[in-house]
Amino acid sequence: MTELNDMACPIPISDYPKVTMAHGGGGRLMNQLIDRMIIGTFSNSFLDRRHDGAVMELDGGTLAFATDSHVVTPLFFPGGDIGSLSVYGTVNDLAMCGARPLWLSAGLIIEEGFSMEDLWRVIRSMAEAAARAGVQIVTGDTKVVDRGKGDGIFINTSGVGIVPEGLSIHPSSLRDGDAVILSGDIGRHGMAIMAAREGIGLEIPVNSDLAPLSGMVSGLLREGLDIHCMRDLTRGGLASGLNEIADQAGLTVFIDEASIPVTEQVAGACELLGFDPLYVPNEGRFVTFLPQEHADRAVEILKNHDDGKGACRIGSVGPRTGSGVIMRSLIGSDRIVDMISGEQLPRIC
Amino acid sequence: MTELNDMACPIPISDYPKVTMAHGGGGRLMNQLIDRMIIGTFSNSFLDRRHDGAVMELDGGTLAFATDSHVVTPLFFPGGDIGSLSVYGTVNDLAMCGARPLWLSAGLIIEEGFSMEDLWRVIRSMAEAAARAGVQIVTGDTKVVDRGKGDGIFINTSGVGIVPEGLSIHPSSLRDGDAVILSGDIGRHGMAIMAAREGIGLEIPVNSDLAPLSGMVSGLLREGLDIHCMRDLTRGGLASGLNEIADQAGLTVFIDEASIPVTEQVAGACELLGFDPLYVPNEGRFVTFLPQEHADRAVEILKNHDDGKGACRIGSVGPRTGSGVIMRSLIGSDRIVDMISGEQLPRIC
Repeated sequence: MTELNDMACPIPISDYPKVTMAHGGGGRLMNQLIDRMIIGTFSNSFLDRRHDGAVMELDGGTLAFATDSHVVTPLFFPGGDIGSLSVYGTVNDLAMCGARPLWLSAGLIIEEGFSMEDLWRVIRSMAEAAARAGVQIVTGDTKVVDRGKGDGIFINTSGVGIVPEGLSIHPSSLRDGDAVILSGDIGRHGMAIMAAREGIGLEIPVNSDLAPLSGMVSGLLREGLDIHCMRDLTRGGLASGLNEIADQAGLTVFIDEASIPVTEQVAGACELLGFDPLYVPNEGRFVTFLPQEHADRAVEILKNHDDGKGACRIGSVGPRTGSGVIMRSLIGSDRIVDMISGEQLPRIC
Repeated sequence: MTELNDMACPIPISDYPKVTMAHGGGGRLMNQLIDRMIIGTFSNSFLDRRHDGAVMELDGGTLAFATDSHVVTPLFFPGGDIGSLSVYGTVNDLAMCGARPLWLSAGLIIEEGFSMEDLWRVIRSMAEAAARAGVQIVTGDTKVVDRGKGDGIFINTSGVGIVPEGLSIHPSSLRDGDAVILSGDIGRHGMAIMAAREGIGLEIPVNSDLAPLSGMVSGLLREGLDIHCMRDLTRGGLASGLNEIADQAGLTVFIDEASIPVTEQVAGACELLGFDPLYVPNEGRFVTFLPQEHADRAVEILKNHDDGKGACRIGSVGPRTGSGVIMRSLIGSDRIVDMISGEQLPRIC
């Protein structure tokens, strides 16, 4: 996608260095923005028809449908930006349903005065991310709100995908004895955002783990592994993801602290800023629950992907013991890993 | 849906009269808000599974997929609110593709400090609108942004519907000679919003025309009328909708000013505020293009619906004459009806 990186903005930035209310008003300026900058860049046969919605043929089967609004701040951070985040966020939600993501919508809420150059950067980033994840942005909507009533840009993406026949990936499919596989080291996305936001110069900068998970998931499914449940570890991090699944399944997840990969930089940044990596959000990490006998093969498959090199088994599922997640700590004692009650890291996605 | 109107908010408003950042933070407070207030109210078998996305069976066919972000201000206006608007907005986009709307997603971006009571009013309104339009809200997402970085609440809805076999409803299907049918009087939504916003006490208040169009559309399709194109007349109003279609079709739409219904109140409000009703947005009006021989029957069918009582023929399609829309005025002269270039009415949807 180097061509896209080098591409000049298709609308003259010198004429409109900032987004104006008129860019959301339904007239010529809005049409120019949408036609040239957005549809022109995301171009595909569905979107190019410029209808109120996209119309797509489907050979029957089971659909997955997901939505995510993105309000991350700052908009550009080490390892990604709100554009790529908004594409992968929804792609990953679909992947967690076992679906092959196919089509996305893009709903932009832009603050009056937002830099046209930054908007163009975000649009390009969305197009690149969509290409990488193998999805098409087939329909969209653009709104402009008054200065001081938004925060640069918010992006909602919704997505439709196809679920292969016979899958039942859901917390209720969890079984006592299942292995818990984590796809890589945790905490990078949250710490990358926090370091960028606080202007903290880490010795070795932390890059977000932002990545599409659909390739890894289809790798697992293609091998016929009996996946019971998957969950991406976004808001609330590993701790919240495991708690939600455990509560819904009525079982307890037992994890081993020593097995959970956290890089030295993330551990350092967490200490500096006072966070627990277990609760720090990720945007390219997920857990998979499946029978023990499939666990080694699952780890092997994940390790074959660039974004799954750090995959490992971190625990197993057992009968409910009162709390959802229990962790064997580094010093050998067991402790309850609760869900956080409030906000640990605001606006990280 | 009276039960819903009387229903107390399922989370204790006295504990949390305002939305806090923690309600978007991925922890217990967010789960409580989503589980009790949102999922509990929209309740359906898909949403109740509380997965990352909704999973739905589909018997093949053609899908329509649409998205709309809603940033209307004020949030509550005569004839509706942002909740019902967000549901009908996307339902109508799907209907304009000829689709039967089935499933919606809901993505909420809430400003810290937003009144919990108002949030509950909006959620109820969405549930009522979904029931009226015959759609289910099957997946969602909730984000909270800092005070001063949003404007109460923004709502994105995306929707999936099924397009009956054999339909090709699109501007490129327009034909020289087609009749143009308008579903009712224009300008009410925009004027209701503007009057509410400016605090103008109109002698007879104007109610928004906000309504789901899917019932009328399925009425037209059920009769086997050969519909070539439809368009709902939102941002930019009738003038912009007709111009967009004419430009895409490479034809000209000829309309007759005398045939376009505008109520006395809307005409008065437009005069008072300096607007042209042709450009004022509607949220429950659409135009249909179809062969002349089907026009009378189409008007008849629309008139059978509560929201189509004012349906009428307003013109016809002819060969391209340089401009997209030409109107025979009340005094008998022809004038070009251009697309507006900027913003006439900001944030009306």
